[in-house]
Amino acid sequence: MRVVVPATEARAIKVRTGQRVRVTDLEGGQVGDVFAFAADDVNEHLSASHTRAATSRLFPAIGEQFVTDRRRPILTLVEDTSPGWHDMLIAACDPARYRALGVSGFHASCADNLARSMAGLGLATPVIPQPVNVFMRIPVADDGGLSWLNSISRPNDAITLEAAMDCVFVVSACPQDLVGINGHKPTPLAIDLLNGQDDTSDVKE
Amino acid sequence: MRVVVPATEARAIKVRTGQRVRVTDLEGGQVGDVFAFAADDVNEHLSASHTRAATSRLFPAIGEQFVTDRRRPILTLVEDTSPGWHDMLIAACDPARYRALGVSGFHASCADNLARSMAGLGLATPVIPQPVNVFMRIPVADDGGLSWLNSISRPNDAITLEAAMDCVFVVSACPQDLVGINGHKPTPLAIDLLNGQDDTSDVKE
Repeated sequence: MRVVVPATEARAIKVRTGQRVRVTDLEGGQVGDVFAFAADDVNEHLSASHTRAATSRLFPAIGEQFVTDRRRPILTLVEDTSPGWHDMLIAACDPARYRALGVSGFHASCADNLARSMAGLGLATPVIPQPVNVFMRIPVADDGGLSWLNSISRPNDAITLEAAMDCVFVVSACPQDLVGINGHKPTPLAIDLLNGQDDTSDVKE
Repeated sequence: MRVVVPATEARAIKVRTGQRVRVTDLEGGQVGDVFAFAADDVNEHLSASHTRAATSRLFPAIGEQFVTDRRRPILTLVEDTSPGWHDMLIAACDPARYRALGVSGFHASCADNLARSMAGLGLATPVIPQPVNVFMRIPVADDGGLSWLNSISRPNDAITLEAAMDCVFVVSACPQDLVGINGHKPTPLAIDLLNGQDDTSDVKE
């Protein structure tokens, strides 16, 4: 089952334990903000800071797991065909971020996208967790400085995750066009549910 | 006003805009988990991931600000007499962390300490935010690997912060004794409110 995530939007799907989900950068150079919540209680969510404590890495290696704020494994990183740049340091963009960048009216954001896609499944979003920013290139210098570079993933580069618990999996095709992380041109992503039922009833905008 | 934070415990104080708070490592080698919440709504809290987005650094430099999950400045880093090792990558220790380390019974934790010290002020703790781990030494290798090293702060080393909004300021003298970050021997810290009223009524365990 493939769900296309249109540029600047998000999609949420339910994933069962053992199923694999692949996030594909359809045109290349596009960041995806990935969130995951426990299916039976969306108060429990993938947590960057707990994952770093579990893996002792800024980002998990292939075979390692992302864990929740209750330290339970939720996703395992199983494959990555991209150049390997992914970020787990930066908060999701939100209306306050765009206001600070000079936007006066509406601007789509990953935080709003998350809430809307969760609502489409009838779910609340009690908090906006720190996302896993796939394909996002934020190198860390020796002095702790962070650089915001354009994504260098190529068309059809993909990262694949396996659910370690029943979860809600959300991907936002980041609408950031004022900072160069998406090359100033947001493009779509795709979510493939690799070994699941062909059941689109769980897919909502 | 000085508030001693006994080893393995936490203390919370209210700090008004413009007041400065100093966290002192009384005996040296002790990590402090620092949390800050907006005084008028504890749903708003100091956020590591939003702070990194604001400063483009793993940890703010002197003069830079920590911001909340609503991207509002909450604390400014004004002085640091320690060797400069502070962490903003690792989650607070909690009962699940100690269970994973083999503890079967009770073990004090920074997450429980936070909730207890907030309750002492009559405040809920809606979420356990990622803390600012002062004096904690977690170097990042070029490959993204993290090392958990013992704190090298010296007796009476201190870090000083100025409140950019009225806030609740919490320090937990981290009880971690199974991983070597505190040299396997938790010790006390102190909080000094530098230019505030001598009013201990706001201080609760």
